[in-house]
Amino acid sequence: MNPVPTLTLAQLATRDAAGFVAALDGIYEHSPWIAERAFARRPAGGHTSLAGLKQALAEVVRTATLDEQLGLIRAHPELAGKAMVDHSLTAESSNEQSKAGLTHCTPEEFKQLQQLNVDYNARFGWPFILAVRGPRGLGLSRQQIIDTFARRLLGHPEVERAECLRNIHRIAEIRLNDRFGVRPALGEQVWDWAESLARFSDPGFAEQGQLTVTYLTEAHRATAAQLMTWMRQCGFDEVALDAVGNVVGVYHGDAPDAPRLLTGSHYDTVRNGGKYDGRLGILVPMACVRELHQQGRRLPCGIEVIGFAEEEGQRYGATFLGSSALTGHFDPAWLDQRDTDGISMRDAMLQAGLPGTMAAIEALRRDPSRYLGFVEVHIEQGPVLTELDLPLGIVTSINGSVRYVGEVRGLASHAGTTPMDRRRDAAAAVAELILFVEQRAAAIPDAVGTVGQLQVPAGSINVIPGRCLFSLDLRATTNEARDQLDQEVRSALEAIAERRGVSVQLQRTMSVAAAPSAAAWQLRWEAAVQSLGLPVHRMPSGAGHDAMKLHEVMPQAMLFQRGLNLGISHNPLESVTTDDTELCVQAFLALLEGLSTP
Amino acid sequence: MNPVPTLTLAQLATRDAAGFVAALDGIYEHSPWIAERAFARRPAGGHTSLAGLKQALAEVVRTATLDEQLGLIRAHPELAGKAMVDHSLTAESSNEQSKAGLTHCTPEEFKQLQQLNVDYNARFGWPFILAVRGPRGLGLSRQQIIDTFARRLLGHPEVERAECLRNIHRIAEIRLNDRFGVRPALGEQVWDWAESLARFSDPGFAEQGQLTVTYLTEAHRATAAQLMTWMRQCGFDEVALDAVGNVVGVYHGDAPDAPRLLTGSHYDTVRNGGKYDGRLGILVPMACVRELHQQGRRLPCGIEVIGFAEEEGQRYGATFLGSSALTGHFDPAWLDQRDTDGISMRDAMLQAGLPGTMAAIEALRRDPSRYLGFVEVHIEQGPVLTELDLPLGIVTSINGSVRYVGEVRGLASHAGTTPMDRRRDAAAAVAELILFVEQRAAAIPDAVGTVGQLQVPAGSINVIPGRCLFSLDLRATTNEARDQLDQEVRSALEAIAERRGVSVQLQRTMSVAAAPSAAAWQLRWEAAVQSLGLPVHRMPSGAGHDAMKLHEVMPQAMLFQRGLNLGISHNPLESVTTDDTELCVQAFLALLEGLSTP
Repeated sequence: MNPVPTLTLAQLATRDAAGFVAALDGIYEHSPWIAERAFARRPAGGHTSLAGLKQALAEVVRTATLDEQLGLIRAHPELAGKAMVDHSLTAESSNEQSKAGLTHCTPEEFKQLQQLNVDYNARFGWPFILAVRGPRGLGLSRQQIIDTFARRLLGHPEVERAECLRNIHRIAEIRLNDRFGVRPALGEQVWDWAESLARFSDPGFAEQGQLTVTYLTEAHRATAAQLMTWMRQCGFDEVALDAVGNVVGVYHGDAPDAPRLLTGSHYDTVRNGGKYDGRLGILVPMACVRELHQQGRRLPCGIEVIGFAEEEGQRYGATFLGSSALTGHFDPAWLDQRDTDGISMRDAMLQAGLPGTMAAIEALRRDPSRYLGFVEVHIEQGPVLTELDLPLGIVTSINGSVRYVGEVRGLASHAGTTPMDRRRDAAAAVAELILFVEQRAAAIPDAVGTVGQLQVPAGSINVIPGRCLFSLDLRATTNEARDQLDQEVRSALEAIAERRGVSVQLQRTMSVAAAPSAAAWQLRWEAAVQSLGLPVHRMPSGAGHDAMKLHEVMPQAMLFQRGLNLGISHNPLESVTTDDTELCVQAFLALLEGLSTP
Repeated sequence: MNPVPTLTLAQLATRDAAGFVAALDGIYEHSPWIAERAFARRPAGGHTSLAGLKQALAEVVRTATLDEQLGLIRAHPELAGKAMVDHSLTAESSNEQSKAGLTHCTPEEFKQLQQLNVDYNARFGWPFILAVRGPRGLGLSRQQIIDTFARRLLGHPEVERAECLRNIHRIAEIRLNDRFGVRPALGEQVWDWAESLARFSDPGFAEQGQLTVTYLTEAHRATAAQLMTWMRQCGFDEVALDAVGNVVGVYHGDAPDAPRLLTGSHYDTVRNGGKYDGRLGILVPMACVRELHQQGRRLPCGIEVIGFAEEEGQRYGATFLGSSALTGHFDPAWLDQRDTDGISMRDAMLQAGLPGTMAAIEALRRDPSRYLGFVEVHIEQGPVLTELDLPLGIVTSINGSVRYVGEVRGLASHAGTTPMDRRRDAAAAVAELILFVEQRAAAIPDAVGTVGQLQVPAGSINVIPGRCLFSLDLRATTNEARDQLDQEVRSALEAIAERRGVSVQLQRTMSVAAAPSAAAWQLRWEAAVQSLGLPVHRMPSGAGHDAMKLHEVMPQAMLFQRGLNLGISHNPLESVTTDDTELCVQAFLALLEGLSTP
């Protein structure tokens, strides 16, 4: 199945500068300076992994001058025009184009692409670069290409330049895979599972090709059933659906009662969400168990993989429902909550064949003494790793957060007749708050602050805002830092209101404690990532995860995998490559290996 | 009809300090210092008008220390509690209370008032002051009192303190009227007309007691018919409805073909608007003509009063329709515009019995050589006069304006996972714009800048705003100042967008030239106001008015009358007192007198 290698890392390690550059010729289009610098900066003994080599090459480009970066981009032919107009592409390029099917455009598609090219060049002054073989390596459809082109045309030039470079690295990655005869088989397995799982979607979304799986719907139950089938095929010793709908798979250690590593993530989604949020953290350890089982290996510890039934809180206002059941924090009142159709959670459970009793749910509580700890793999859901050209990151802490919704009341008055010094402009007060939050959060390491909702209700162009509604979301790596930020922001808001003569109402809607990673487990992830020849990048998790709940009862640490499309999540554009996913599975295997050899 | 005076200005002028204070005892509750200082500051020969005396007393309070102002407020009993609990009010106070009917509260109302008193005292630390005899002097209903109480409870303490003082001045005004045996009969006439006109309102609004009169609806036509009836009763020589629905009343001068003074304003309203916006400018000159006619007087010039059919542009997007017809700027395309029910303006005209042809509309164009000029009386629609305790103000210029609607596009991303230095927050960019507009407009004399509409579409508490919609309204007294502000704001927005890596779309929706008052006509208004014993206060008009259109063909100048409730307009709370309206009619009569004696 794997392509025939024409190059190995061992060969590359013996080359001199010229030989190194020659061996990598054609990986980056007409830009030998990249290989030259990578050679100059290579570690003693050469690159120990293809992943490390890829990262080193990307690092050269990332630290190059703007002119060099633009030169690299401009070294590429126009995506569509060239392919169709003069067929003069390089072998790889035309290969990539043909895989994208661009040589078989309809006249309408051809016209669209031509127009996009014209608009894109006019806007950015460089050719549109897209890794047309896509995240799975099998090629994007013509429609996907056109949609991506149209979407990226709207981006900011700086963002789009970086996106072009990332696509160039992806093209280089696929070329390197071909040259080194490598296929990310484990990553492909996980990717294909995720793709297959996404065929289940709630009514109203499925019809539009959108992925929405909310608690205990038909799609949700089908997803669970599919996971269980796959787990059995992977060789898990025990596979079950628990009383809240969690999918639980156990791969025994040397002894069936050996202490276990607990891992997993959620399989529900937000509305019109992505395919990897949550699910990656179930599928990656499944791939690991499949590997172990195929090798007939048992570890000293058992592996318990949970597909948590509910984390997003979309159907009922009960986020972290699945993991709460394991920690004994399932709130009995949740059973009486009703969805928008008036169906209570208890009835939804009964309908799904679950017992729907607190007794059954309380029985799910885990005894921490039987577990080594909890690890969770998750797509980053942010831009940090993709901007640093890193496939993996190690989570140092899940940020503590506090949320508010607020309203400033000033005085609605005529925009023309109210002098500037007589105004009580509610929106201007919130504007000050927004900039204060931005400035203060930036001053605290790894803290973030966001005003995500903002509205002048029934605002008129010629009326000074008398009311302004807003939300506030503050997060930091420790409770202390979060509380400090919280205090500062609230004080500033009071001062703004006092000075401007407006009043403020602030309602706290959420407060979650920070969950710092357990040092030993964080180190295990770091060792696993290093063993792949990749640099260790430590980062906080700004988003909440099931690991936050498990944190209450056992040590935990998370591993992040890079997301494509600037790390967008909770969105159909959420995406990962098979190569990054391969590294994620490899890292998990390395972590398991580390547990076996203390 | 008038109360029996117990004091005259002539008497007051002869008093020494002690006598002056004694004569005004009880006008301001337990605060003789007000009369003392007014005596010390009185003009040589004493106050020449009651309006001047009232203004002088208010001026003393306005320039007093904060402690003195609070002392004055605290010298008042609690509005409701006292009246009902111990009946120990002063004669005037209990008189005012009984007129308000507060002694006949239902138990529910009593409970509400008690609670409001408790909340109000807790919030502000002083008693709630309300001039319960209201703007007409006949007393507010219990429901009006409770509603006002509840509304003011939400205000900012500084605003509320000033509002208490203004109510104290209103109480003092009514007491002074009683003591001097004065009744504002002309003001009452205009006030009652305005109240009566407000009984006509469009369907959907009338049922809720809201005032909405849009172009050529049944309510609009009834309003016109009522105005015409009153005009005939006033003694106008010619009364007609013209081809666009303007009501035109002419009171001949010495000769029927004598040059005319043109005046008037609009009788249409915004949705759920106020009773005085526009209409005051029709009713005040009507009251003047009524006076002249009753006295059998003719002036050297004729007086042509127009009730413009349409200024607000609510039913059709054709603002200043009525005045445009007079200046020859009626756009023929307007006839084909359709309202939200699909009815074209032409059909609406035909249905209303108007010819609906451009020939008929073009015939309405006035020959400027037949007119002395155009004057317009209007409620201020702003807080300036009320804050300065002045009933009247003279307009120096109707501000030029420019309006935009805009959108900033950044990048929607996860509020938790996107570091502060990786964000492209569309709302933060608009926040910077809001504060820049505020700061720059404040730096240019009489300029204003407003972001009235503001919205993050479908914003989420945990998503960085990827889009932010806003509006922009910039005005200044000259076109040059407006253009400078416009240029600065747009440059700043570009710089903000560039720095933040977001993109901006800005669409200009309106641009109106400034209309400086004709010097001679402004001077005539100033002389008229001074003749009432009032100080001259010059101010720009931030709002657009029919005078802006007439400005294109003849000299114009406007007079503003103070609005209550902080000058709020386009709102049911829009209000004026009969005393201020009396002064407005008197000022108009004085202006006419000035035209008669060149």
